[in-house]
This record gives sequence, C-alpha cells and structure tokens, in this order.
Amino acid sequence: MKLWLGTGLVEEDVAGVSPLDRGFTLGDGLFETLRVKGGRVLRLDAHLARLAAGARVLGLPLPAFDFAGALRATAQANTLAEGVLRLTLTRGTGPRGVLPPAHPAPTLVITAAPLAPPAPPARLSVAEGTRRNDRSPLARVKSLNYLDNILARQEAAGRGTDDAVLLNTRDRVAETSIANLFAVLGGELVTPPVSDGVLPGVMRAAVLAEGARERSITPAELATASEIFLTSALGLRSVRSLRGRELPGFSVAEHLRTRIDGA
Amino acid sequence: MKLWLGTGLVEEDVAGVSPLDRGFTLGDGLFETLRVKGGRVLRLDAHLARLAAGARVLGLPLPAFDFAGALRATAQANTLAEGVLRLTLTRGTGPRGVLPPAHPAPTLVITAAPLAPPAPPARLSVAEGTRRNDRSPLARVKSLNYLDNILARQEAAGRGTDDAVLLNTRDRVAETSIANLFAVLGGELVTPPVSDGVLPGVMRAAVLAEGARERSITPAELATASEIFLTSALGLRSVRSLRGRELPGFSVAEHLRTRIDGA
Repeated sequence: MKLWLGTGLVEEDVAGVSPLDRGFTLGDGLFETLRVKGGRVLRLDAHLARLAAGARVLGLPLPAFDFAGALRATAQANTLAEGVLRLTLTRGTGPRGVLPPAHPAPTLVITAAPLAPPAPPARLSVAEGTRRNDRSPLARVKSLNYLDNILARQEAAGRGTDDAVLLNTRDRVAETSIANLFAVLGGELVTPPVSDGVLPGVMRAAVLAEGARERSITPAELATASEIFLTSALGLRSVRSLRGRELPGFSVAEHLRTRIDGA
Repeated sequence: MKLWLGTGLVEEDVAGVSPLDRGFTLGDGLFETLRVKGGRVLRLDAHLARLAAGARVLGLPLPAFDFAGALRATAQANTLAEGVLRLTLTRGTGPRGVLPPAHPAPTLVITAAPLAPPAPPARLSVAEGTRRNDRSPLARVKSLNYLDNILARQEAAGRGTDDAVLLNTRDRVAETSIANLFAVLGGELVTPPVSDGVLPGVMRAAVLAEGARERSITPAELATASEIFLTSALGLRSVRSLRGRELPGFSVAEHLRTRIDGA
C-alpha cells in the first residue's frame, strides 16, 4: 500500500510521522472516512465541509492543502476502485504542553484500504462502561479522541455483539461506536439530534434528507423499536437484534439503501 | 535531543512512528509526565503503577518493557539532570477499525525536555466551552485523548488567563487542563474526588497524604476559596486569581512545597 504523507505518496512500510506530532501525543487532530465506488470518492464535498467545521472547533487554521487531489491520488496509486480512504489531519509537531503553537504546520495522512465484504445485520448491545460526552463540542467532531468508542466496542465484543449503542451523560441514546443510529418508533423513522452527543454523519444527513426526524431517544424506547439500522460513510447496516431481542423489520433500511447507499 | 522509540535511542529528527499506529489514528494509548531532579526520576513507582492501571482500563496487556531502564537511558542520553520525561505507550499498529487487535504490539516513546523556569502564580478562568466526562472511566486515565483539555486551555488563553478549571458534566469542579486543583474552603484543604472526573495525579496523592480531604466542589464554593493551588508531576503552583478575583493566601502551598515538592 502507498499512503499520502505531507506533500506526496510514500510506501506504507517506510512512512513515519514524528513522535512529537500532536496527533500522536495528544490526539490533536481530525479524520474522515470516505467510500470509494467505481473509482469515485462519494460525498466528497460533505466530508470536506465536516473536516472544515471540525477544524474550526479545534481552532486549527485549515491549511491550503488540495485534499481532493490528494485523496484521488491515493486511490489511484493503490488502484482502488472499490474501497475506503481515511484522511487524517493533525496539528503537527509542537513544543511540550497542551497549548497549541500559534502557527501550526498540520500533518496530512491519507491511507487506502479495500472494501470489506458486506456485513450481515448487526447484533447490538448497550454500552454500560462509558458515556458519550454530549457536554463537549468534540461530540460533533470526528476527532482522533476515539478511546470511549474503543471501550464501547471492546465491551460489545465481550458480550458477543457486533457493536454497542453509546448513551450520553443524560442516559439518552447517542450513536454506536462507529455509526449513527436510526430507529422506527411508533411507525416513524427517528434519530437522536446532534445536541444529544451525536456526530453529524454524512450518511446520516442523507437519510435525514429522505424524511427522518431528529428527536431524543431513551434506551427504554429503543427497546420497543420495530426496526433499527446504522449509517456510516460505508453505507447502511441493518440491525438484527438489540440486547438479544430480535428485531422484526428490515424494510425501511432496504428501501433507503436502494435510494442513497453508494449513490 | 535523543528519544526512546521501541527498543532503543534514536535521534529525534530521524525518528518516525507508523501512520497506522493506533496512538496516531485513534488516540489509543497512555502517557506519563515525569520530573527528573538531580538526575533521578521522581516518584517513578507511582507513575508506573498509574500507567499499569490505565492499561487495565484500556484492556491493553502491559508489555514486558523495562520502562524504568528506558526512562533512565533517555535522561542520561540527553544529560538531563533537571528536566521532564514523557513516556507514551500506544496499542501499536492495527488494521482499519475501532476494535483493537487481539495481540497488540505496543509502541513505546520517551522524550526528554529541559525544565521550564518556575512559573509565577497562575491566573485561572473557568472553562465554559466544554466539560470533563466524569461518566467515562477515561477521566481517571492519563490517555492520549487530550482535546477537551486543549479546548479548555485555548479558551483560557483567549481570556488572558494561564489555565482553565474544567467542570464535569454535573457542573462540579474537576481539575484544570494540566493539573489537579486544591482549595482552602472554610479553613479546610480539599480537592475533588476521582469520581468527579479527576485524574488521580501522583502529586495529588502526595498532597492527600499530607492531610487534604476529598469532597465535591461547586464553582460557587471555589469562588469563596481563601487559597487555591495546582499540582502536577512538575510540582505545586499557587493560584493568584480566579476569574479576575485576587486570592488572599499562598501559605498552605508554600508549606506543602517545602515538604513534598521535588522530594
């Protein structure tokens, strides 16, 4: 695999970032995961807009990199017609300490990976060990601070499920460790609002545009859903069971998948 | 500067960590900041015990590295008699995805820095833009997920103060962006309990052993303190003002500093 590092492509096994990079020392950076389909990067503008919004939250002046060109070059160098790109942007190196340098020199890394086989409908549990911090603006930013998600995903694996629903600090449903969550409740398709500690996912926005409604969801309500599905840049994934309870429906996700998935 | 990377010392400007290291991609790791005084690493056992406790929270099997030997070698290679070491331990590289590999190969980095001149008493503000997540076990872990602290520190800089008090999700006082906080309230020396979202600092433990008491503190109470000081591995720092209000006392910190600081 070749990856993009800084200003050009390098072989993955010789590429190195500085151990003083604030992405490495403090998680001081952002990332985007982008789907490549038929050689084309899907929803590129939406991903770059979210990256820019995240940079504003972090107070990181967005460098004048040609992100789109670097993404396409990385896909082409790996002859990636179907796959996944990950773009990582950090604040670059800095002296010791938490306060960022006044004039950061950001680090850009783009990696490519083949598309995994389609995942079967997910078995979900609810993470009990941690909560998503809806009181932090980072909840709406795709930052490098992913340890709460990692803890939730490990807890899911320990319970024999595929992914875990993260609740926020007020015990409302937020999302899963890697995806936004939609549920059919009382015949209506709903998803938690961003203010409940939800990352504004690019695919989530596409589903909202199809007519879903944002509203807070309690775990007790979620347990009564007739259908649940997950969205990420990689697509829509149906949910087979929540806490061991089988879910009856898949039809809303199937309908939406034909309309927007991979489009 | 020479730094420790993996199994030995390398020159800082040629050292590189893999862009696929989970410390870089997901903040999946831990760190410790250690004071070196007279060529000796202070409170080494307490720091290594906290590192081990953090690794348990992260489900990271602690590798059989000679951490103490690597720390001493890094200090010696940089002829660091007075200074600061930073030890970073990450889960190492892994395939795409949040779930850690079953058998991680952790990455160890140790950097050295000279001691900054003694800081004058701090001017503190209270961070309004974010909250420390007391509902996550990561609050008691010195992990690489430092963005909430960075946001708070940036906010402090914007207000013209030296550091910011972070509140937790229940609006109680937790700590500052880089230090634990002690206050004299009603003549008693108190500090928030770990359950309020507080990192169990090594210097904090040393001050507790001198007779301070753990109890929750509201921002309104903190505003009435007769004295406030901060603790970190680098020492005790008095607080000159909180939200622009000058603090009358420094005597408790001065007394404690002679007893435990740099001991």
